[in-house]
Amino acid sequence: MRFDPSNLKFDDKGLIPAIAQQQGTGEVLMMAWMNAASIEKTLETGHVTYWSRSRQSFWAKGESSGHVQKLIELRVDCDRDCLLLIVDQTGPACHTNRRDCFYTAVRDGEEVVISEPMV
Amino acid sequence: MRFDPSNLKFDDKGLIPAIAQQQGTGEVLMMAWMNAASIEKTLETGHVTYWSRSRQSFWAKGESSGHVQKLIELRVDCDRDCLLLIVDQTGPACHTNRRDCFYTAVRDGEEVVISEPMV
Repeated sequence: MRFDPSNLKFDDKGLIPAIAQQQGTGEVLMMAWMNAASIEKTLETGHVTYWSRSRQSFWAKGESSGHVQKLIELRVDCDRDCLLLIVDQTGPACHTNRRDCFYTAVRDGEEVVISEPMV
Repeated sequence: MRFDPSNLKFDDKGLIPAIAQQQGTGEVLMMAWMNAASIEKTLETGHVTYWSRSRQSFWAKGESSGHVQKLIELRVDCDRDCLLLIVDQTGPACHTNRRDCFYTAVRDGEEVVISEPMV
């Protein structure tokens, strides 16, 4: 079947969550949101473009920082309401300059920072 | 800092997306939703409990199928609006009996099924 973003299930704001995972290592880097147009841009350009909910505009990942995400493969989940992006991430994925955004673990009821900025 | 689910950023329905990742292999198994009470249940019991948006009730993962998710560690992202659950998944995570929900890849513009049911 031909992939058509309009056949995905978007929320009431026209958005779908997208998880970015590093190819090879399997690291879960971040989760952000896409709309149909940003999915199309991502597939066309080969570079991951999210939709920024705060700025209400396209968010070409790494455009200003250089920390781009090259798309390796886009996957769709069974309910068609979540995407998994297999990517090749240059440098940190997180705006804190950490490799990934999930650097706070809950251990024995306490929040513990488990990674440091790369740069 | 003591972890308090009420300090997370929930959406306008009181929900937060939660990504389940298999410990060790790094497989991204699924994404589902939690509310504050389901996070507390998950931490208390050590077994992942989501919030079912369709049934509007707790969804103790694997309660009927036996395909439970044992919680290894809960992580919070930089914006506090997404969770990463490091889990130990018994059998398939997907209701299609596949190991994970992201079994549809987009390759050359076509949807391709890349894994089969385990049972």
